[in-house]
Amino acid sequence: MPDSPTDLHPLDAATRLTPGPGGTLTGRTSPAYANMVGPFGGTTAALLLRAALEHERRIGEPVALTVNFCAAIAEGEFAVSVREIRSGRSVQHLYVELRQGDTIAANATVVCAVRADTWAHQPAAMPEVPPAGSVPILNGKPPLAWLSRYDFRYVEGPPFIPGTAHAEPQSARSLLWVADNPARPLDHLSLAALCDVFIVRIYQVRGTRTPAGTVSITSYFHASADELAVQGARPVLAKADSMRFGGQFFDQQGEVWSDSGKLLASTSQVVWFRD
Amino acid sequence: MPDSPTDLHPLDAATRLTPGPGGTLTGRTSPAYANMVGPFGGTTAALLLRAALEHERRIGEPVALTVNFCAAIAEGEFAVSVREIRSGRSVQHLYVELRQGDTIAANATVVCAVRADTWAHQPAAMPEVPPAGSVPILNGKPPLAWLSRYDFRYVEGPPFIPGTAHAEPQSARSLLWVADNPARPLDHLSLAALCDVFIVRIYQVRGTRTPAGTVSITSYFHASADELAVQGARPVLAKADSMRFGGQFFDQQGEVWSDSGKLLASTSQVVWFRD
Repeated sequence: MPDSPTDLHPLDAATRLTPGPGGTLTGRTSPAYANMVGPFGGTTAALLLRAALEHERRIGEPVALTVNFCAAIAEGEFAVSVREIRSGRSVQHLYVELRQGDTIAANATVVCAVRADTWAHQPAAMPEVPPAGSVPILNGKPPLAWLSRYDFRYVEGPPFIPGTAHAEPQSARSLLWVADNPARPLDHLSLAALCDVFIVRIYQVRGTRTPAGTVSITSYFHASADELAVQGARPVLAKADSMRFGGQFFDQQGEVWSDSGKLLASTSQVVWFRD
Repeated sequence: MPDSPTDLHPLDAATRLTPGPGGTLTGRTSPAYANMVGPFGGTTAALLLRAALEHERRIGEPVALTVNFCAAIAEGEFAVSVREIRSGRSVQHLYVELRQGDTIAANATVVCAVRADTWAHQPAAMPEVPPAGSVPILNGKPPLAWLSRYDFRYVEGPPFIPGTAHAEPQSARSLLWVADNPARPLDHLSLAALCDVFIVRIYQVRGTRTPAGTVSITSYFHASADELAVQGARPVLAKADSMRFGGQFFDQQGEVWSDSGKLLASTSQVVWFRD
């Protein structure tokens, strides 16, 4: 890790928290991850996870993270607080809130655990895809800052659409290699952000853009910090799909795979949309 | 709904909350849903959802529910508190805690919304199965009270195992018709409980029982109350699978379908286990 703040990777800068009085942490939105309204949700997820991981009584590594996006986060400062809900011998529950003024703009529940080696088995198979190096990096992205923070190599289901609605709904599935840009060795923070890297499925299904935003995301981390370190900064394989759209909401189901075929994280989210 | 408490369906009795001073609600564990240690997690999920839905400022219907199981719930009384985190025009976030003494034994985040009609589309297809009526109800269940609160009709992957470990891991997938016993018209409470109705996958994969328990469950409700009312008390189709086991945890991915082929809920959970 570079020791001057200006040398920080943008994700580390965007998730930096400064301790203040009463245990409250202070952070600031980062233009490097700006989205249509407020920051890229993945950055917020990484930030709330980081707040939990930096808690003085935290044990072990993250296992589960649920982040609720409660209000738009305005550009500028925010306060983050972490509460220890329950700590067992090896499993711990934390609760995190992000506030701007009187508004709780996001909250999160975090499960950490001191994991031990056990019987292991991976029934899920990695989708068959060409290696990342043989898939071109996506160009012509819309001018949203956070999109430039990732190199996307779409194998299936590119999300950017010509602006004419499809006559029939298209597949909601995407399959892509993705890496932080600039490159950054994978850890649970960047993995938490990567779990939200899928462009909302409704764009590619309908072929039009409508107002839409993630309301809640849940990610399970199957990989230990050591396993993530082995992956390093090489692209991971990401898969997303949806099962049902209607009544202003739809789901997204996602997977993040190492390039050696291990499931690093599984994730789901519910997204609000307007016609 | 019967008006005498003794006529209540066991699920309604198990999730009954009595308002007390300071807005705290009081409930009590129900022997009808007893599990190995504490109550069936689905009952706890339904209870925390009910606490949110009975909040005086609640708007709309539930869209998302994450429940964290933080400590074993002892037989007896517990206190439940609900906090309004953020209410927008049509989307609301609530936070719920269940306490016994000084211990927060469970917490939950709940998203509710006043849903409007929109474009609708269901890419996911219901698994092909014989009708519920042609599948026999499972007999010979282990003597855990909560198992008697459901009629299980397994089409694939029955979870109860002979006690000899499989030489090779078996499929983690199950497919079953399931209904409350006694019968109860479906609503979001019983749907929240049904999302946890899958016996932990590790039993059927390994063919042995090991200590295991859900740590966190997230459920998305795709169906409105009106749609659930149409399903009534008829069995729903439930599907569960797992992607990766290891380091003391594994995931479960679940779906709950109406008998007319609509996805009512999608759900995922992370489960702790010991070798």
